[in-house]
Amino acid sequence: MTSPLDAVAGFHLRAIKAGIKVSGNWDLGLIYADAPAACAGIFTQNRAAAAPVLLDRAALKKNRGRARAVLVNAGCANACTGETGMNRARACAAQVAAGLSCPPEAVLLCSTGIIGQQLDPRVMKDGIKRLLAGEGGAGADFTQAIMTTDTREKVAAVTLKNGARIAGVCKGSGMIAPQMATMLGFVLTDAKIAPQKLQTALQAAAAASFNLVSVDGDTSTNDTLLALASGAARDGEITGKNYAEFYAGLLAVCKSLAEQIARDGEGATKLVRVVVKGAKNAAAARSAARRVGESPLVKTAMFGNDPNWGRIICALGNSDAHLAPEKTTIALCGKTLFKNGAPQKFDAAALSAKMKAPEVAINIDLGQGAAATEFLTCDFSYDYVKINADYHT
Amino acid sequence: MTSPLDAVAGFHLRAIKAGIKVSGNWDLGLIYADAPAACAGIFTQNRAAAAPVLLDRAALKKNRGRARAVLVNAGCANACTGETGMNRARACAAQVAAGLSCPPEAVLLCSTGIIGQQLDPRVMKDGIKRLLAGEGGAGADFTQAIMTTDTREKVAAVTLKNGARIAGVCKGSGMIAPQMATMLGFVLTDAKIAPQKLQTALQAAAAASFNLVSVDGDTSTNDTLLALASGAARDGEITGKNYAEFYAGLLAVCKSLAEQIARDGEGATKLVRVVVKGAKNAAAARSAARRVGESPLVKTAMFGNDPNWGRIICALGNSDAHLAPEKTTIALCGKTLFKNGAPQKFDAAALSAKMKAPEVAINIDLGQGAAATEFLTCDFSYDYVKINADYHT
Repeated sequence: MTSPLDAVAGFHLRAIKAGIKVSGNWDLGLIYADAPAACAGIFTQNRAAAAPVLLDRAALKKNRGRARAVLVNAGCANACTGETGMNRARACAAQVAAGLSCPPEAVLLCSTGIIGQQLDPRVMKDGIKRLLAGEGGAGADFTQAIMTTDTREKVAAVTLKNGARIAGVCKGSGMIAPQMATMLGFVLTDAKIAPQKLQTALQAAAAASFNLVSVDGDTSTNDTLLALASGAARDGEITGKNYAEFYAGLLAVCKSLAEQIARDGEGATKLVRVVVKGAKNAAAARSAARRVGESPLVKTAMFGNDPNWGRIICALGNSDAHLAPEKTTIALCGKTLFKNGAPQKFDAAALSAKMKAPEVAINIDLGQGAAATEFLTCDFSYDYVKINADYHT
Repeated sequence: MTSPLDAVAGFHLRAIKAGIKVSGNWDLGLIYADAPAACAGIFTQNRAAAAPVLLDRAALKKNRGRARAVLVNAGCANACTGETGMNRARACAAQVAAGLSCPPEAVLLCSTGIIGQQLDPRVMKDGIKRLLAGEGGAGADFTQAIMTTDTREKVAAVTLKNGARIAGVCKGSGMIAPQMATMLGFVLTDAKIAPQKLQTALQAAAAASFNLVSVDGDTSTNDTLLALASGAARDGEITGKNYAEFYAGLLAVCKSLAEQIARDGEGATKLVRVVVKGAKNAAAARSAARRVGESPLVKTAMFGNDPNWGRIICALGNSDAHLAPEKTTIALCGKTLFKNGAPQKFDAAALSAKMKAPEVAINIDLGQGAAATEFLTCDFSYDYVKINADYHT
């Protein structure tokens, strides 16, 4: 199986079944570059940030936005694991660095899985040894190795006019909320771009994609989004001239990945697109969209195919959007349900039937200004409860 | 069946089956006082406030904190119903006022039920006529008449040393979140207290009770908490001397009602008590407790009897409590799970068995100061999803 990740020049991906996941599936992956790559990173704002997040922040700073490798494991988050967790993470980075003959700060780490469990040092040592020895599949297996409760692989790619490629992969299904990035996301490009410029582009792209997605409103302890640029594509330099095209490509990859996360939300039966316009300003638009997209009452109504617009306006009323009901219009699946401060007549049975689709749109016009946004979420089903009541520590 | 509500001197309660609820159950209730009572009110902060909320706010102001009657219906929220909804609410108040020979601003209205539906003017007119004619049961039936998805009646009462009584009743099971009060709550007392003093006491009591409860994080469009004081108890005057006792009694009634709401949360199988101490200040304590108590991941873990403290610390890390993991201690059912920045060993099977109780406590010490709070919530079950996916508009 080939993956668009393997087509990005200057990078190599590997993955093995190291024995971290109880299921015995792929669980340890390595991305490495032939030469130091420009690297941008966005990390969780959760104050209980995991050991790998703490190390990566320091490493990226120390190494001035460059990296040679990223080691990723699923099955154990190495979060809230104290000094032991930090030391075990450092040992992993040191082992990869020794194998690639680079300084430890050129190696980034990402972990995802259960919070509060320690990495098994023997399992990690053996796994890293196998990866460094050249064992393991490529991009497609790497995509599997970073998954936890995900049911689908999440990959997106574009090619720029100058031939440079941008390919991204991410994981995330639960503990997903805007505030920075997704749980784990990696975007590789063989374009040539300076670290600072890459960081600026990544922040803007994340704000317009991963930060507008929610499954359950909980920002995880391990959220990390990394972009690495090898510069290995011939004529792949990003200049003032083609920066806009590069950014558009990066944004398209991030948006596609973010949408894949919402579609694959834990227990989700459908994607819910909350489109807000007419807001006073961007912050009001985001607050309105997020409040609707994160309301358990709205999300269970979507699961039940119930055109319950009352819960939508209730959520709007609790947002920071300064709702004025008389100026507000709410439509569901294209049907206007509330307008001019009053309910509109509609055929509830017909609309409910229409809601039994893999994608449902809630369109809100706040009637107050020109700001707009789109927020992606999913419905709230029995299976969300099942998955999260059964996912035992 | 007698209710402590009926024992409060100076008030009368009635309730009938008017035909508003599809089920045909009790759905229209009236509280009326023999003479104008001091009245305090706290209303939803939702910007899509319902017609009765808008009218009550104006009426209480116009009538300077006095009221003769409260008409309450369940089955229709009369929220987001535009000018038609306002006019129908006004007609109800006018009819009650005519029957009691008082000005319309002495009549308060409360509605609860589905948002966006209009009250049926004929059904309301007939119902009010029957109530004014003396038809209908007393306190016990009134308690039923205000219920929607509630599975239990919620009543609490105390008697002060001077013989004055305080009795409260409330409803609320879903769309419950702190921000002011519960959905609908009524506290009656035959103590003699000035409106301003009653309002001050009610606000303080609500902040320490109803505002520290959440079922699903959504503040409804109809939340209303009213306290009425008839002054009909002999020697029941509240002075500087016995104000503290009065406040303690009011607080006890409010706290009991709030706890009853959390216990009866939609689909709840258990009460979850989130106790935070060691916070830097009161706001930090509240933010920490609320974030834990509202996290769907924590709530589903409680349903699954899963001692998943990682989700608790993740929620704390997303709060405004400036979490410092190394100073934080987390205990579940009395067992310490996280301390000094590191996980503690525990018997997961034994603790899971202990969690199969009607009440579970999460104790958090933030290790940063002296502020503390207690937040009440419930677990998140299949039945929450079922109730809210099936509660069709």
